[in-house]
Amino acid sequence: MKLTFLGTGAGVPSATRNVASTALDLMAENGSIWLFDAGEGTQHQCMKASLRIRRVNRIFITHLHGDHVFGLPGFLSSRSFQAETSPVYVYGPPGLTELIDTTLRLTQSHLTYPLVTHEVEDGETLFHEDHFSVSVRGLDHVVPCFGYRIEEDPRPGALQVDRLRQMGLGPGPWYGELKAGKTVTFPDGRTVDGREFLGPPIPGRVLAICGDTRPAQATVDLADNADVLVHESTYDHTQADLGSKYGHSTCDQVAQIARRAGVRTLLLTHVSARHSLTDLHAMAHRARRIHPDTRVMDDLAEVEVPCPPL
Amino acid sequence: MKLTFLGTGAGVPSATRNVASTALDLMAENGSIWLFDAGEGTQHQCMKASLRIRRVNRIFITHLHGDHVFGLPGFLSSRSFQAETSPVYVYGPPGLTELIDTTLRLTQSHLTYPLVTHEVEDGETLFHEDHFSVSVRGLDHVVPCFGYRIEEDPRPGALQVDRLRQMGLGPGPWYGELKAGKTVTFPDGRTVDGREFLGPPIPGRVLAICGDTRPAQATVDLADNADVLVHESTYDHTQADLGSKYGHSTCDQVAQIARRAGVRTLLLTHVSARHSLTDLHAMAHRARRIHPDTRVMDDLAEVEVPCPPL
Repeated sequence: MKLTFLGTGAGVPSATRNVASTALDLMAENGSIWLFDAGEGTQHQCMKASLRIRRVNRIFITHLHGDHVFGLPGFLSSRSFQAETSPVYVYGPPGLTELIDTTLRLTQSHLTYPLVTHEVEDGETLFHEDHFSVSVRGLDHVVPCFGYRIEEDPRPGALQVDRLRQMGLGPGPWYGELKAGKTVTFPDGRTVDGREFLGPPIPGRVLAICGDTRPAQATVDLADNADVLVHESTYDHTQADLGSKYGHSTCDQVAQIARRAGVRTLLLTHVSARHSLTDLHAMAHRARRIHPDTRVMDDLAEVEVPCPPL
Repeated sequence: MKLTFLGTGAGVPSATRNVASTALDLMAENGSIWLFDAGEGTQHQCMKASLRIRRVNRIFITHLHGDHVFGLPGFLSSRSFQAETSPVYVYGPPGLTELIDTTLRLTQSHLTYPLVTHEVEDGETLFHEDHFSVSVRGLDHVVPCFGYRIEEDPRPGALQVDRLRQMGLGPGPWYGELKAGKTVTFPDGRTVDGREFLGPPIPGRVLAICGDTRPAQATVDLADNADVLVHESTYDHTQADLGSKYGHSTCDQVAQIARRAGVRTLLLTHVSARHSLTDLHAMAHRARRIHPDTRVMDDLAEVEVPCPPL
């Protein structure tokens, strides 16, 4: 499970930061890649990051501002250019379906795969399959905007090999069956239920990935005890008035949210181009005094999401 | 007058070629920049080419396929982000207005400048102002597609300084008036009509910039005696059947068109990513046997458009 930050800028692309998009690589977990937002040039950034766009099967749009969606039609078309036939699900605010349908119709972009769009509602659980469930909360921006909570199913505990050995059951193909929780009958007539030889389940990982927003209680709920919170940080601590006016957050506000939610790692993105590198270091430093594990992301940065500590 | 090739690929962006867009820099002629097509990432390419997007005041779309228009909404929005207030005119096929209006409405992109869209018709002259006129011809693609002919007004001939000197009229501020074709009355009572002291007018330059098309008589007409023809060359000479099927041209076909039209310089773009660099050299070599001044363009290549020889 790996996050790749495809675009970490705000509003317009700059020389160093493209507009918004974050990829969640679940190739190891379920063979797929998910995208959160798709600003213009997202397919170009995928190329640079060596992310195979044909493996992207779910796209979550936080809101319909251009810097979060103008790359969507090109992404969908290029995936089609590869003659991919597996479906894509796109989730996002009301208006998403009209935007996609109108664009594909007028540009005569005929996709080679089924495209399913779903306009989300606050509090909804979108699906629970392929070892993950995703739910949605409405945030507090100047247009309808959402955050997504991704919860991995708990994985079975480790097989208690020592106990099996004590019973005279050494390694063999039956270890795999037992680990999968199945019952194995041995030649000597003994019957062993794998579920009785598994350690405690390994908790699944939890991520919260938010769109543009003022600091909001909904974000605290969404990110409750999350391993990773990906949050915008458009402004620094001196610009709370701008954030309030334009529906954004300052780094300090986000760090406080992460602390209140009990988040493990806070990853800041959607950084205004007006900030210099020095500004960014200062922002991160301030935020870390509130929530120690806080990082400002750069374009093409990759972050492995480790399992939660036992 | 300078052409900058912002995207020279076909269909999808590749590592070396972005999707279609060509800029015509008229800063020296009338203070503006024009764009022909705007595939995804056109604003990014403008940044790399140091083209100031706020100076772009006319955008000509050849057809509505995604690789020619998906960068338009982002371009228009980013120009607005710079708080630019001067108008932009966008020309293109039917459906252009609905595409732009729907996208800007649903993404709540509020522009800071007036945007005028105009859906073009075969044979139409779009305007004649700022020293240029632009006319349109319908081409032969799988969707409605157009080419644009840009004609520069003739410029006044050089002031015949030798003749003036013979009359005892040395250099002075009146030279500028005379060169502008005005009449100057001198203190000694003599009246001189500048128009009688100008050499032959300098012919304006002519460019034809085409969208995707099979070889077409309309292109020959459009490019009649042009200084520069910018034309797609999606396929090589072995792929005429593909070109015929998908509405594209081979390099040989385009070179023949350039020869028939009496074009001075042929610039090939919209090159399929399937061609290696070796293929491209071979394509150019073949095309030059038909039309000697032929070049295959690369991304960010710049071509000055010189005045036609006298």
